[in-house]
Amino acid sequence: MRILGIDPGFERLGIAVLDPALRKERGEKDHCVVFSECFKTSSKLGFSERLNLIGKEVHKIIKEYKPEILAIETLFLNTNQKTVMRVAEARGVVIYEASSAGLKVFEASPPQIKIATTGYGRANKEQIMKMVKILAEMDTSKTSDDELDAIAIALTAFAHLKVLKK
Amino acid sequence: MRILGIDPGFERLGIAVLDPALRKERGEKDHCVVFSECFKTSSKLGFSERLNLIGKEVHKIIKEYKPEILAIETLFLNTNQKTVMRVAEARGVVIYEASSAGLKVFEASPPQIKIATTGYGRANKEQIMKMVKILAEMDTSKTSDDELDAIAIALTAFAHLKVLKK
Repeated sequence: MRILGIDPGFERLGIAVLDPALRKERGEKDHCVVFSECFKTSSKLGFSERLNLIGKEVHKIIKEYKPEILAIETLFLNTNQKTVMRVAEARGVVIYEASSAGLKVFEASPPQIKIATTGYGRANKEQIMKMVKILAEMDTSKTSDDELDAIAIALTAFAHLKVLKK
Repeated sequence: MRILGIDPGFERLGIAVLDPALRKERGEKDHCVVFSECFKTSSKLGFSERLNLIGKEVHKIIKEYKPEILAIETLFLNTNQKTVMRVAEARGVVIYEASSAGLKVFEASPPQIKIATTGYGRANKEQIMKMVKILAEMDTSKTSDDELDAIAIALTAFAHLKVLKK
């Protein structure tokens, strides 16, 4: 059950593909990060062009890694209204590309992500990042926060689906 | 210069295609509504499926009517946060489909729409609708508000582009 985790953003989009089975084959732990990146769009480009690049990148990654599930963070309104609207539009494009490719969509709220990664619904950013690094067992020295967020979201989907299967 | 006007929505999407040239050929006035509809998605469907239907519908209409410009209303936050986020996601999908098909995107703010249709930036809904019916010169008895909104948005883009050309 391969999962595409996305930390939705307009300027920076965290993307990660996790495959639990792959690591099990190797006799290791549950989660394997097959791919991760922080996809950036330049502020010099027009808005519609940036949306286009985001959709095309997600399309490309789905085609290449063939995940079955999209795990994506739910959005909440913060102080910057304009930013959150742009992020929502990018989020719509990501879900659209995933849905067009037949992926199931799992929406993870921030408290769900906190509980799934740290066991504590009010964990702070540092605590989440620390646990993600342990859970994903990867060399995270070169991994951006956006990628780690995307991995955390994919781990959350994995935890929920595992519970559902039991 | 064929314009696709979209009144962004998640449950109801107003869509209109206007072609100024077409009517000029007939020796009539400026604007001709080639197509209009209110595209609805059922609340019984899942969120990602509804986004998918919206994108596919816009894709189909672009392919059939070949507009060169997408005119779409800008969004502002209202009281219902959840609704506005879903509408923003749908809006992202519409812009993505248009941008992928090579259309230029024109974003029209509510005051721009009011000025372009009525000449008055604080016009109310009824005043806009009345003017749209006159400007579009169509049989509007069967036309929904969402379609009229989409026509108003397309008319706004047309007014702006006409000014730019002068």
